[in-house]
Amino acid sequence: MTPQHHLPADIERTSISIITRELDELGLTPPPETAAVVKRVIHTTADFDYAKNLRFTPGAVEAAVKALHAGAFIVTDTNMALAGITKPGLKKLNGEAICYMADPAVAEAAKQAGTTRAVAAMHRAAREHPGAILAIGNAPTALLTIAEEMEAGLRPALVIGVPVGFVNVVESKEVLFAACERYGVPAIAAMGRKGGSNVAAAICNALIYSATEMLDPSARGWNG
Amino acid sequence: MTPQHHLPADIERTSISIITRELDELGLTPPPETAAVVKRVIHTTADFDYAKNLRFTPGAVEAAVKALHAGAFIVTDTNMALAGITKPGLKKLNGEAICYMADPAVAEAAKQAGTTRAVAAMHRAAREHPGAILAIGNAPTALLTIAEEMEAGLRPALVIGVPVGFVNVVESKEVLFAACERYGVPAIAAMGRKGGSNVAAAICNALIYSATEMLDPSARGWNG
Repeated sequence: MTPQHHLPADIERTSISIITRELDELGLTPPPETAAVVKRVIHTTADFDYAKNLRFTPGAVEAAVKALHAGAFIVTDTNMALAGITKPGLKKLNGEAICYMADPAVAEAAKQAGTTRAVAAMHRAAREHPGAILAIGNAPTALLTIAEEMEAGLRPALVIGVPVGFVNVVESKEVLFAACERYGVPAIAAMGRKGGSNVAAAICNALIYSATEMLDPSARGWNG
Repeated sequence: MTPQHHLPADIERTSISIITRELDELGLTPPPETAAVVKRVIHTTADFDYAKNLRFTPGAVEAAVKALHAGAFIVTDTNMALAGITKPGLKKLNGEAICYMADPAVAEAAKQAGTTRAVAAMHRAAREHPGAILAIGNAPTALLTIAEEMEAGLRPALVIGVPVGFVNVVESKEVLFAACERYGVPAIAAMGRKGGSNVAAAICNALIYSATEMLDPSARGWNG
């Protein structure tokens, strides 16, 4: 086992076939529509719990791929999730990913309103990119803000609700998912405590790869 | 439960006390030296497996804190881990974190040598920052390269070995940890398949917070 012997693409293919086999053995084979997302999250975490935790509104993946083909923006709630999203993949789709958390105007708006930067960042996203894919891997308050914005009329292309944690996290994902169901907004959420910026980025990447593969089926090969 | 009611610092304190209680209930109470690292990794992942997976060479945390007090660089193998490291914390220590993966010279060196960017990035780190904290959350080949460099005389301040995955990952962490033990290099590794850039960043942050608290004990309060 020397460093030179394994190309990243080969390792990824082998990894995905191991994940596929173990999911089958566990009786957790995901349906074709969600398989790419579920497998990529397990690839990112080595945690098979996600085969049970991930919840999708019907048609969520198809809707997200369609939005990506139309050049939808992705807005994240952490710079870490932003850093994890495949830039070459997004470029093929003429898409863009952004995060407002480090924006001084957002910090100022949060201070003025006596709220968190995550809340201010989501209000900003709702204003500037109302049809975006919102990828939330950290802040429960971001999910609650999105639910409020949806009540006021916001209709994002997709909400990815995967904060991780021990306080308000479980509840915020329940609130978000119920709101998405009520307003017909596509959603992918990791129910329970688990999630994170890495999971948010992995879901975005699975969707981006699915979207690029449809444009060029020879491009990758496993993502589905 | 409205977005305004919970300050991030309060949520973090509450989260850590939930983690502490559940670790006690599971019979997995970590020893004082490693508790801050173990708890912060669980805080980042909501995955209590890390109470069993994380392995430390004796005195690793103390050595890392000492290195941070001396202004040691942190070198990561992903921009995602880099994005997750607390910049205000590092600033208090006059430290710096870098990642060579997007460096064109590293891409060129990898191409010339017929190897991966992760391998080339670690050779570069060994040359430019031989006494750094090396935080590896993604590439098993980075760990193997560090083990080779240690054989050739490299003595990093600490190696954090927490790649995630299904191919070569388990083995690379075993090789790294054994090499660190052999050469007396402090190491923190997540044995088995689990890990990731988020885990690498969480370990760095636990060490950074421990180091800053020793300079200003009133600063945080829970990290220990």
